[in-house]
Amino acid sequence: MKFKPLKDRVFVRYTEEGEKTAGGLYIPDSAKEKPQKGLVEAVGSEVKEIKVGNTILFDKYSGSKVNIDNNEYLIIKEEDILGIVEG
Amino acid sequence: MKFKPLKDRVFVRYTEEGEKTAGGLYIPDSAKEKPQKGLVEAVGSEVKEIKVGNTILFDKYSGSKVNIDNNEYLIIKEEDILGIVEG
Amino acid sequence: MKFKPLKDRVFVRYTEEGEKTAGGLYIPDSAKEKPQKGLVEAVGSEVKEIKVGNTILFDKYSGSKVNIDNNEYLIIKEEDILGIVEG
Amino acid sequence: MKFKPLKDRVFVRYTEEGEKTAGGLYIPDSAKEKPQKGLVEAVGSEVKEIKVGNTILFDKYSGSKVNIDNNEYLIIKEEDILGIVEG
Amino acid sequence: MKFKPLKDRVFVRYTEEGEKTAGGLYIPDSAKEKPQKGLVEAVGSEVKEIKVGNTILFDKYSGSKVNIDNNEYLIIKEEDILGIVEG
Amino acid sequence: MKFKPLKDRVFVRYTEEGEKTAGGLYIPDSAKEKPQKGLVEAVGSEVKEIKVGNTILFDKYSGSKVNIDNNEYLIIKEEDILGIVEG
Amino acid sequence: MKFKPLKDRVFVRYTEEGEKTAGGLYIPDSAKEKPQKGLVEAVGSEVKEIKVGNTILFDKYSGSKVNIDNNEYLIIKEEDILGIVEG
Repeated sequence: MKFKPLKDRVFVRYTEEGEKTAGGLYIPDSAKEKPQKGLVEAVGSEVKEIKVGNTILFDKYSGSKVNIDNNEYLIIKEEDILGIVEG
Repeated sequence: MKFKPLKDRVFVRYTEEGEKTAGGLYIPDSAKEKPQKGLVEAVGSEVKEIKVGNTILFDKYSGSKVNIDNNEYLIIKEEDILGIVEG
Repeated sequence: MKFKPLKDRVFVRYTEEGEKTAGGLYIPDSAKEKPQKGLVEAVGSEVKEIKVGNTILFDKYSGSKVNIDNNEYLIIKEEDILGIVEG
Repeated sequence: MKFKPLKDRVFVRYTEEGEKTAGGLYIPDSAKEKPQKGLVEAVGSEVKEIKVGNTILFDKYSGSKVNIDNNEYLIIKEEDILGIVEG
Repeated sequence: MKFKPLKDRVFVRYTEEGEKTAGGLYIPDSAKEKPQKGLVEAVGSEVKEIKVGNTILFDKYSGSKVNIDNNEYLIIKEEDILGIVEG
Repeated sequence: MKFKPLKDRVFVRYTEEGEKTAGGLYIPDSAKEKPQKGLVEAVGSEVKEIKVGNTILFDKYSGSKVNIDNNEYLIIKEEDILGIVEG
Repeated sequence: MKFKPLKDRVFVRYTEEGEKTAGGLYIPDSAKEKPQKGLVEAVGSEVKEIKVGNTILFDKYSGSKVNIDNNEYLIIKEEDILGIVEG
């Protein structure tokens, strides 16, 4: 099954590593809004700076969650994405 | 009886399968806003990316519900549709 | 007496049949916002997709009500109209 | 004394007949927002569809009230006017 | 001392006559928002319909008050001015 | 140390004289929003009507305060400045 | 690991000196919103006036915090940056 996000939306799979990463990134508990990480699986027709395969950061309360075949996904507008984690 | 949505609105029939699908999609109970599925039956004159016959995801609280001949329908603006489920 | 709505407004007479229609349309009690039906009697100069004689659906809380010669009317902006009921 | 409304504003005198009119118009008590009638006495430079002498309907809570020589007047933006009562 | 309002702002001196005027204008106590009168002393560079010397009406809660040499002044945006009192 | 405000922002030093001025300006206690005075020290690239050296009035709750070398400064957007005090 | 902010966002490292600086800048406790300092490490494609290496001021509650390799970072939109500290 495939999902094609509309317009400026991005379809994101939550990555397992969660709070600690090889690169050392983690999100502190005390932060008012904790950014989270995900892997981009599909992008809408109006998305400009995000590509499939990017690892991105986004605020915890942005977007809409769906669950497909026991993976958690997020559908989020590009303008709500904070940026791309590289390397 | 037919219904023609106005401008950027989409006329959607709720699909029965609901929480579980052949493709494995389901919507978790704990999600703050649970996306739902529907089949597009008609589109307004300003709708651009959605076609009749598409299966779409949308947030539970988007749009206006109507009931015609015992089927549940939703009238929703295209910008509130999350994306298209394919395959 | 005649009423001419301004700009993008539509002048609508509530149709009597209310909750049940020949076409089978009814509006469920449990819906958060219940769409209602009406017959368009006049349109403003900026109205584009609605014509006099159309039967339309609109949300219960949209527009302003007036009563002329014991008929209930609604003055509603075109953008708040959900769509046209045909056939 | 004369009053010249600014830009898109309309200067309106409340008409006495109030709740009942020759044409049969009245505004029901139970309506959430009760439209009212008035006679246009002056219009601002950006007003397009309203002319001096028009009888108009407007929502009770729109605009600002003033009292000149014991007549009640309303200063209201054209976009808040519902329409023109004719004949 | 002089004051030059910025952009679309108007600098207004409250006129003493207050509640009763030669022309018969007064503002009723029961009105939700009571318009007030003032004399325009200076206008910003983007003001279009108001001139120095105009007597204007404005809502009580619009703009910012200042007191210079024991006169009360108001700094108000042109779009918040209701209109010009003439004659 | 220097501070360069961004875009449409203005960097303002609070002037000591405060409530009473040579020109007679003071801000009454009872006013809902009390304008305050300051001296402009730097302007952003998009500021149009304000120049370094101007004495300006602004609402008490506008902008962000900083303290540099024991002087109080304000960083405020040009659109929130009420006007320029001259002479 | 590198982070690339999106569009009009700026990636900022909090500078240690915090409340007191060589230049004498500090942020008073009593201020309603206390600006804070940071060093710009990366900028999005739509950022215009901010460059990598700038020291900037921003309001405490602007942007989203992340923690990478035990340094605190902020992701903030350019329009929420107050200005650049120079010299």
